[in-house]
Amino acid sequence: MSADPATALPEDPVALVRAMGTRARTAARTLAALSTATRAAALRAAAAAIRADAPAILAANARDVAAGEARGLSAALLDRLRLDVARLEGAAAGVEAIAGLPDPVGALVSEDRRPNGLVLRRVRVPIGVIGIIYESRPNVTADAGALCVMAGNAAILRGGSEAIESNRALHAALQRGFVAGGVPADAIQLVPTTDRAAVGAMLAAEGLIDMVVPRGGKSLVARVQAEARVPVLAHLDGINHSYVDGAADPAMAQALVVNAKLRRTGICGATETLLIDRAFADPAPLLAALIDGGCELRGDADVQAIDPRVRPVEASDWDTEYLDAILSVKRVDGVEDAIAHIARHSSGHTDAIVTEDAATAERFLNGVDSAIVMWNASTQFADGGEFGLGGEIGISTGRLHARGPVALEGLTTYKWTVTGTGQIRP
Amino acid sequence: MSADPATALPEDPVALVRAMGTRARTAARTLAALSTATRAAALRAAAAAIRADAPAILAANARDVAAGEARGLSAALLDRLRLDVARLEGAAAGVEAIAGLPDPVGALVSEDRRPNGLVLRRVRVPIGVIGIIYESRPNVTADAGALCVMAGNAAILRGGSEAIESNRALHAALQRGFVAGGVPADAIQLVPTTDRAAVGAMLAAEGLIDMVVPRGGKSLVARVQAEARVPVLAHLDGINHSYVDGAADPAMAQALVVNAKLRRTGICGATETLLIDRAFADPAPLLAALIDGGCELRGDADVQAIDPRVRPVEASDWDTEYLDAILSVKRVDGVEDAIAHIARHSSGHTDAIVTEDAATAERFLNGVDSAIVMWNASTQFADGGEFGLGGEIGISTGRLHARGPVALEGLTTYKWTVTGTGQIRP
Repeated sequence: MSADPATALPEDPVALVRAMGTRARTAARTLAALSTATRAAALRAAAAAIRADAPAILAANARDVAAGEARGLSAALLDRLRLDVARLEGAAAGVEAIAGLPDPVGALVSEDRRPNGLVLRRVRVPIGVIGIIYESRPNVTADAGALCVMAGNAAILRGGSEAIESNRALHAALQRGFVAGGVPADAIQLVPTTDRAAVGAMLAAEGLIDMVVPRGGKSLVARVQAEARVPVLAHLDGINHSYVDGAADPAMAQALVVNAKLRRTGICGATETLLIDRAFADPAPLLAALIDGGCELRGDADVQAIDPRVRPVEASDWDTEYLDAILSVKRVDGVEDAIAHIARHSSGHTDAIVTEDAATAERFLNGVDSAIVMWNASTQFADGGEFGLGGEIGISTGRLHARGPVALEGLTTYKWTVTGTGQIRP
Repeated sequence: MSADPATALPEDPVALVRAMGTRARTAARTLAALSTATRAAALRAAAAAIRADAPAILAANARDVAAGEARGLSAALLDRLRLDVARLEGAAAGVEAIAGLPDPVGALVSEDRRPNGLVLRRVRVPIGVIGIIYESRPNVTADAGALCVMAGNAAILRGGSEAIESNRALHAALQRGFVAGGVPADAIQLVPTTDRAAVGAMLAAEGLIDMVVPRGGKSLVARVQAEARVPVLAHLDGINHSYVDGAADPAMAQALVVNAKLRRTGICGATETLLIDRAFADPAPLLAALIDGGCELRGDADVQAIDPRVRPVEASDWDTEYLDAILSVKRVDGVEDAIAHIARHSSGHTDAIVTEDAATAERFLNGVDSAIVMWNASTQFADGGEFGLGGEIGISTGRLHARGPVALEGLTTYKWTVTGTGQIRP
């Protein structure tokens, strides 16, 4: 009788991950059979456990922060790592909110009766085992773990070494809450080692881990995408475009583009390139508003002619995600030219048009092949919470399974059920 | 002005596939904007072109068959390779049938209006570029090409070297028909070389090929799954189970199991293992019917006690896809034991229960985690045509994107469109 199921796990990272994956698969089968009410109650119990453990979690986090300061981590990294009462309450409240979301598990995707009387249904079921590989933010432990379990999946969590104490404390609280609510302990497992080989083992765990979600910076996502043998849900870049059409309302265009670029420059939904139709009458106030708002603009001679403060653009700018107060600006000849530029340079995340012309907007919405295409809205809305999904496990720029913000539904798949009365195939 | 766009392609297999992929991407963008009527008309024109070219296609096929005979190909392989008037008419009629299927492209997946007035829609769109890697059956050229193009995708076809002449002739007809119907020529490209390095290049063509579908024997599928860097839609095995519950109707059980095993033993939906509840009163007639039908049964002493003609089973039998008139047989203790055996040994393709007890059936349908789960129906129904999909590009035992038989809808994905009136994110 071991109090902690992790005590029996092997030390070798590959064997460890395989053992965790096998346990997770068994737990996932149990979890998949639990009712919506049971899963929701388990999430609420986990939120209560986070609140009850707050002193221990904050103390563990203080140890991580102190170690990070001693190691000379950057201020930005330390900020992502740091928990306080408000952030921890936010994590607990987030878990409770997920418990209240509509449950995709069991939903009927399609139903058909064949001429021979067979009834075919597609029914949503959990995917199975989800691996989450993340960096310094410890609240991912609660957020991603709760989304996975609410959708009926077992989660294998592998957080950053700099947050290991915080993650252990958060995981212990979550797991205790889940178990109190009737969810198997192995439905949420934290990789106990900081050995980077464990990440490689997760990425190679075909048949044990059904999907991996990397949550962190570009280098983490790039490594996961390059190495993974299991499917990955992720986006590498958010090279997003806002296109101001000749038929745009100038005031709306200015408000939208300033927001899309400058509201928060570091998020993946921020606009990185502004395309302005040559037919747009007076672009000068728009560029001035951006520059006056603290944004560096980069453009060719055409754009510099509008405002002398525009700096020269280089070819690489069109493929750069600045995540900063920098914007590349290009004049284009109408919506087709904008679509062509976006086809070459967009990362397929979020692209927007500003126009009062419905036919032009329709052409843009159809012609731009990105996960999210917007008309008269700020690209900064590209977010699972803003989309009403109650959070997100990630945003996908892949083309299969799920695109854009992914939450509970994207953490499920379907199976076919066929109900007959003894039909044999002729 | 080149008559054949393939003339300008490089010879090096990797450069060749990349050039084809780039052309396919451009063609896919054009194709995605075509109406249902245009795509359907192009398929009908392609069917007409196949019929018009029948003499040339059959002559090309005769050359392939003669070369295959000279090389000593097996009779089974030669049969798969051989076209005749009826098979070719079947291919043309199949293309026409696909033209008449409901079009998934443009279908609304979901729609939501947020409190801030943003309208969010998910709309079905083509995936983009699909690679088809297949072996000796030349009719895959028509069938898979037509499914891809009807769903708005460009197809890159790579058939077996033994069918190269047949595939070239069929491809020429299809492409001419598509072009006549307004589809770009590059929407359907046949890899012109039989160099196996081209297959490796397709499997590595991330960003150019969005999904690969292998169509052929187990060694092809295994190679594709092992090497691919792009997503693969496939199944490796069909280790399918029929479970005869204690509450099964004996006559129905016998009819279903005999059909599930023996109707055609070589298809992926054939049952390979029979599980019999110990509570099922009289299994002897069922086993006798199988043996009398020409099936070799393998079982342990328990099963041999029912019929002395049952041969001994080995542990490896439970994980073997016979694709032959052989069946492993096991007695189990009720539905939970059956579910547990299936969880260990099923390939996740198709598993069935025979029972008159609705609660037991419900438990089986929920508890078995396979792409297709059946109640009182023959596993041989596991087929896109039988499911009313109008054919299939393949059957997937993967857990993401699409499961079970996949046809037009599984060849699409979705994008989000967001329609606003100038909303900025606070």
